Amino acid sequence: MGGVLGLMTDFGLRDPYVGVMKAVALGITPGATIVDLSHDIPPQDIEAGVWTLGVAWRYFPAGSVLVAVVDPGVGGARRAIAFAAAERFFVGPDNGLFTSVLARAEVERCVALTNPAYHLPGGSATFHGRDVFAPCAAHLLAGVELGALGPEIDPASLARLAIPLVATWDGDTLVGRIAHVDRFGNLITDIPLDTPFVAPTLRIEVAGRVIEDFVTHFAAAVARKPFAIRDSSGMLAIAVRDGSAAETLGARRGDTVRARGVPRA
Amino acid sequence: MGGVLGLMTDFGLRDPYVGVMKAVALGITPGATIVDLSHDIPPQDIEAGVWTLGVAWRYFPAGSVLVAVVDPGVGGARRAIAFAAAERFFVGPDNGLFTSVLARAEVERCVALTNPAYHLPGGSATFHGRDVFAPCAAHLLAGVELGALGPEIDPASLARLAIPLVATWDGDTLVGRIAHVDRFGNLITDIPLDTPFVAPTLRIEVAGRVIEDFVTHFAAAVARKPFAIRDSSGMLAIAVRDGSAAETLGARRGDTVRARGVPRA
Amino acid sequence: MGGVLGLMTDFGLRDPYVGVMKAVALGITPGATIVDLSHDIPPQDIEAGVWTLGVAWRYFPAGSVLVAVVDPGVGGARRAIAFAAAERFFVGPDNGLFTSVLARAEVERCVALTNPAYHLPGGSATFHGRDVFAPCAAHLLAGVELGALGPEIDPASLARLAIPLVATWDGDTLVGRIAHVDRFGNLITDIPLDTPFVAPTLRIEVAGRVIEDFVTHFAAAVARKPFAIRDSSGMLAIAVRDGSAAETLGARRGDTVRARGVPRA
Repeated sequence: MGGVLGLMTDFGLRDPYVGVMKAVALGITPGATIVDLSHDIPPQDIEAGVWTLGVAWRYFPAGSVLVAVVDPGVGGARRAIAFAAAERFFVGPDNGLFTSVLARAEVERCVALTNPAYHLPGGSATFHGRDVFAPCAAHLLAGVELGALGPEIDPASLARLAIPLVATWDGDTLVGRIAHVDRFGNLITDIPLDTPFVAPTLRIEVAGRVIEDFVTHFAAAVARKPFAIRDSSGMLAIAVRDGSAAETLGARRGDTVRARGVPRA
Repeated sequence: MGGVLGLMTDFGLRDPYVGVMKAVALGITPGATIVDLSHDIPPQDIEAGVWTLGVAWRYFPAGSVLVAVVDPGVGGARRAIAFAAAERFFVGPDNGLFTSVLARAEVERCVALTNPAYHLPGGSATFHGRDVFAPCAAHLLAGVELGALGPEIDPASLARLAIPLVATWDGDTLVGRIAHVDRFGNLITDIPLDTPFVAPTLRIEVAGRVIEDFVTHFAAAVARKPFAIRDSSGMLAIAVRDGSAAETLGARRGDTVRARGVPRA
Repeated sequence: MGGVLGLMTDFGLRDPYVGVMKAVALGITPGATIVDLSHDIPPQDIEAGVWTLGVAWRYFPAGSVLVAVVDPGVGGARRAIAFAAAERFFVGPDNGLFTSVLARAEVERCVALTNPAYHLPGGSATFHGRDVFAPCAAHLLAGVELGALGPEIDPASLARLAIPLVATWDGDTLVGRIAHVDRFGNLITDIPLDTPFVAPTLRIEVAGRVIEDFVTHFAAAVARKPFAIRDSSGMLAIAVRDGSAAETLGARRGDTVRARGVPRA
């Protein structure tokens, strides 16, 4: 197989929720290799999940099953889904959490997870991660056909968040956003850069400030002064060496970033 | 086999303690599949461990070995034990940490972990997770007989915390406690509900306040107003949609919860 | 094989960095067993990484590959390296992070990770954990020869931090430091103790205070009064029962510790 069960949730690691999901999956597919993508998506922050899944999913090997659970609507009208795309399976709530995957991969087939034969018996209306998503994912990893899990649904009907995933042009300027602030305080934008080098002819504005320095790697920067860099996801990022760009600039996720001079693809 | 090595500790994930336990176990049983239940039990809070283990252990597949370490008495007179119950093995200190397991599963056999042949050579008096529990658990997972690990002891002699595990009746009212506050600020009580629906004929009091709303799933609730729900562990829980019930109500673990109108089983 | 892929980083678990490293490694070596040593090394704190790796590496089974990434110089002039020592492989940046390993294990062979055939295609200058270290480690675990990863380099040329790893004698007194403060607030020093017992004839000073109590295990201590104990790593530690020695003494990593009366080996 070579497949991996990837997990992303907003459950945190203090409560037993994630461990129980893994135990349930391993009870169904003992040989599963489980990888935690993140369990510290801020509670119920679907948009944060969209970004994390978007930068990470393509690194999981072909045959992987990725379960994503940020699910404020659990137990209600939102559908539970699984779909095949880009040689992988994706499993989770149909609430927009897969927006970034759907934007870049073509869905081959999608089903609603309504067949109780593949759910945990005696489930709840509050924890589909344990009762529906983990069991269905484990069954997929074990080779169960997608179609066995429930009726086919139209991929066009899948929920998508109405958020920009990538910066847009306004004249000669790319106008984007801070899409993520990471542990180091790096501000990762949604402005794609085609080359590993951030050209110093760019004019970048963020949080009311013009970024003056451009480097290819962190250590080339002047300490404590914000600089632009091409992030590992291929996006423009703003960072501070030996410090936090988020703190230095007082910047937050969602803040506008303007870049003039990026070559048009 | 299909067995899993489950780990629950109060060691946190910042220090190398948990990683070292896993490395030791894998040195003994290379094929072990390890699942972290939680390592963020508050330091030395045996009671928190009792709750976490109590809601989670039954989701681990038959054949699993569950290691639990919240162990302020390490190196002293408390025994190190392993026991077989409900088709699983449990390994850890005999200090009450298994109270919730012992209340619901019958111990088939129990031993004291005194045979040094199954310990890490050159052990310490401060880290039995590494020196005793992980090695013994790995040996059990590899098929070593429980009886090889040490002399049999009477299950009736195992330590149990003198805490209520479940609410008790006072006339027509179930009087219980907040047993756990989770990451979302949900208040999980020790009041069992037999059906997925919390009847609106219930009268629930917590933190000096009567809970007026009853829902079957989170999204059905009014935002920011505390409501009652049947939790995924089958217990009455108090939650707030798009917020924290713990903060909204100023409630904490151990606070009293009263429920009038729960049908008697 | 029996080998394990151990990971230590300063990436934290909130961002997708660690999960992506694991996904990349499993895409190369599907059967790898991955163990997290710690991902909460304080950001860019190489010295903290040196301590953590130093106490933990020997517990990983022979054949393990340990990847360590605390890498402020990523993408710059510092080399990416892998070396064989003590029946294990070590992979990471050549920035001193392996100081404690190099002090205690003899390097058999060391290479610079310059062969792009074993890197992730289309890599970055900011995330060698994903692009260089995880892939090279996975290839080593799969049996690729160390020499295939790049040209041999002289082990004597490897970077070492100029920090004391162990206390030194000043007359009849061992003068050391607090090397680590753990989750429980225990102060772990760099003063080795050859026996499990801390002799009460020792005179120990830390943070301007003389430690008066000496115990063999935590529960033997008086509550809330700092005591000396032999830590699980064989070092002198200062702890407080039912409390934090760090808080009680106002002590921090790097503070001086003096011990008079330790027998000379």
